[in-house]
Amino acid sequence: MTTLLLTGFEPFGDHFVNPSEMIAKELNGQEFSKIQVIGKTIPLRFNEIKREITELIDKYEPEIIINMGQASRSAISIEKVAINLANTNKIVYNCGSKPEEEILEPSGPTAYFSSLPIKILVEYLNEYQIPSYISYSAGTFGCNQIMYHSLNHISMKKKPPSCIVGFIHLPLLPEQVLNSPHSPSMDYNMMKTSILLVISKLGEVALTG
Amino acid sequence: MTTLLLTGFEPFGDHFVNPSEMIAKELNGQEFSKIQVIGKTIPLRFNEIKREITELIDKYEPEIIINMGQASRSAISIEKVAINLANTNKIVYNCGSKPEEEILEPSGPTAYFSSLPIKILVEYLNEYQIPSYISYSAGTFGCNQIMYHSLNHISMKKKPPSCIVGFIHLPLLPEQVLNSPHSPSMDYNMMKTSILLVISKLGEVALTG
Amino acid sequence: MTTLLLTGFEPFGDHFVNPSEMIAKELNGQEFSKIQVIGKTIPLRFNEIKREITELIDKYEPEIIINMGQASRSAISIEKVAINLANTNKIVYNCGSKPEEEILEPSGPTAYFSSLPIKILVEYLNEYQIPSYISYSAGTFGCNQIMYHSLNHISMKKKPPSCIVGFIHLPLLPEQVLNSPHSPSMDYNMMKTSILLVISKLGEVALTG
Amino acid sequence: MTTLLLTGFEPFGDHFVNPSEMIAKELNGQEFSKIQVIGKTIPLRFNEIKREITELIDKYEPEIIINMGQASRSAISIEKVAINLANTNKIVYNCGSKPEEEILEPSGPTAYFSSLPIKILVEYLNEYQIPSYISYSAGTFGCNQIMYHSLNHISMKKKPPSCIVGFIHLPLLPEQVLNSPHSPSMDYNMMKTSILLVISKLGEVALTG
Repeated sequence: MTTLLLTGFEPFGDHFVNPSEMIAKELNGQEFSKIQVIGKTIPLRFNEIKREITELIDKYEPEIIINMGQASRSAISIEKVAINLANTNKIVYNCGSKPEEEILEPSGPTAYFSSLPIKILVEYLNEYQIPSYISYSAGTFGCNQIMYHSLNHISMKKKPPSCIVGFIHLPLLPEQVLNSPHSPSMDYNMMKTSILLVISKLGEVALTG
Repeated sequence: MTTLLLTGFEPFGDHFVNPSEMIAKELNGQEFSKIQVIGKTIPLRFNEIKREITELIDKYEPEIIINMGQASRSAISIEKVAINLANTNKIVYNCGSKPEEEILEPSGPTAYFSSLPIKILVEYLNEYQIPSYISYSAGTFGCNQIMYHSLNHISMKKKPPSCIVGFIHLPLLPEQVLNSPHSPSMDYNMMKTSILLVISKLGEVALTG
Repeated sequence: MTTLLLTGFEPFGDHFVNPSEMIAKELNGQEFSKIQVIGKTIPLRFNEIKREITELIDKYEPEIIINMGQASRSAISIEKVAINLANTNKIVYNCGSKPEEEILEPSGPTAYFSSLPIKILVEYLNEYQIPSYISYSAGTFGCNQIMYHSLNHISMKKKPPSCIVGFIHLPLLPEQVLNSPHSPSMDYNMMKTSILLVISKLGEVALTG
Repeated sequence: MTTLLLTGFEPFGDHFVNPSEMIAKELNGQEFSKIQVIGKTIPLRFNEIKREITELIDKYEPEIIINMGQASRSAISIEKVAINLANTNKIVYNCGSKPEEEILEPSGPTAYFSSLPIKILVEYLNEYQIPSYISYSAGTFGCNQIMYHSLNHISMKKKPPSCIVGFIHLPLLPEQVLNSPHSPSMDYNMMKTSILLVISKLGEVALTG
């Protein structure tokens, strides 16, 4: 049995929900052929994200880590790179923190590439008629932060286990854009299906590799 | 029994489907309490749109006309105004026509306002968590054209029946933006639900008025 | 000598300047071969716009009226149509008015087309390498309002003089987007050159027609 | 005297000009108090960019390197990070190359941060009323590539000289968006002023540091 750690974030800013949390909760505990999903919500607090994610990794020792978050984008976007930096512009962490050009890990490298087979996953989602693309910036907020900490933590393990790590940005839900109807959104079921398809494809690709 | 004429357009440009046609076909023949839906597909041919829509109006004598079309927008947009003009820019009618600043009805007025209770409908969709807004330009292509001809034809009837007329723009479907994933889209079921909610609200508002 | 009435609006919302006012002031009193420019600033007050513009028209009896305003757009956009409606969404008039789907002229027609030779002007600006396009919606705020009142006032004159009337939307200035650097803007000199080119072309086209 | 290597790219895609080349050529050979500018055009050829930029660095041994390029953005954007990757999507290098998720330097790190004082420069441009922002993705085309090679080449020098390196994205010129007038653009003089202001500020900040 393969363990997949699937994280979402709690709501932030003006939002009352966060689809990444909804999916993490809904899929928590489910098994898909060879994959067991551990779904967890991460608080969007600047000084807690590292501890939360590294403790989860140490506790569950997953073979796959998928961190999820939300962004005002029109499609499922799978992130290629996490950078060693936090910078808030107009958004604020839920703890009130507003880091400015702050390094996440003083001794860490400038960036990590995701170890997910991103191109394969994007093509797979497109086959199933779900708009999707590779993104080369996960921003400089919580989403980039958790992705960086996940990749850094795995890379620092003495015997690095065969663990693949990545981040997926979900669009906003339709109910989150009622006051800004010119912003794009995506149906919840399509988001959830996307994550199920990613899990299914990873079961095939990663585990037989 | 109230008759509602619901039109959609055939696909155009690079598209193989048009959600407005899909919904018109799916709802054709259905009855909703007091409302009987006549769903029809209109060819996107510059010289045929007027004849097609006026013949349908004369044949079915509907109390409600909702013309639908698609646009690359992020939400259901209900059009306020139809102008007496066709102008193609980069899109071409399916017949190959490319009208340039062409008047639709030489003896018609410059514009008509929709007679749908637009604000009520937009608020109603928002209550049901569907992103929606009032649009003040239906463009200068087939969508504006059919809306203008519908309103003009009703206005010219000697004994104008109590007919309310309007146009609703649907977003693109997710499968229509796979090659342009930065474009917004909307799930088919949410679009269909929007039209059902509009029909339901019109049953309440328009028929008891 | 031909008289051209050129209006701009005072600043509104968060803005301290309005390029339309700046250009109206700068060109006021200037003569270009056969054209004398009367440049005026219009207060952005819902209940004063009609009176202000009609009094100016009656006082100066211009052969050409160009109303200008600003919009968050990337190019000079020349408006085709003014509709008989005011509706404020998130912006508020400087007097505090927030009309909702309010008719501007109870006895006026639904809309007027501009009588400027729009297509010729857009092509002329493009020749001079200035991004420009025809717009089919002037919105539902002060810009649409002054355009509607100008066209309506001219159309109601018993002996309609040979007066051509239109509206030009200017982009924001670079200094207006410092806090929203993803918004488009345009250099002041390019905006002013645009208006000078429009005046020059109108001198040619309109006056020899 | 401080040497500043300022590079621009040749035009690509449908474009006949590239403002980054124009500025590099115009400022080539100029001296600004303590700074001597060497302006060079780099061919946008996948297999030549590394050789071209490293030869220029070795030849001129600059204390400051500013690589410039163009992007369809609304403001001057100063890049924070260069990643070890090339990936072409719809654009093609002028040599016809279309790298797909290709590593730029097999033995190089995943990414470098710019050593320009980006935040100070953005604030300085804003003071002078020029829209500007920090960008966290230079893309995956020639712009990211030259920035990566510049930073990598400097980092590999045995005795790393005190050299600061960065990349600045210029918007399109107005004449480049005539066929896509909904795209943002910026006046050439404002772009050139931006680069002069950056040079001036670097003269102050970097050289007295």
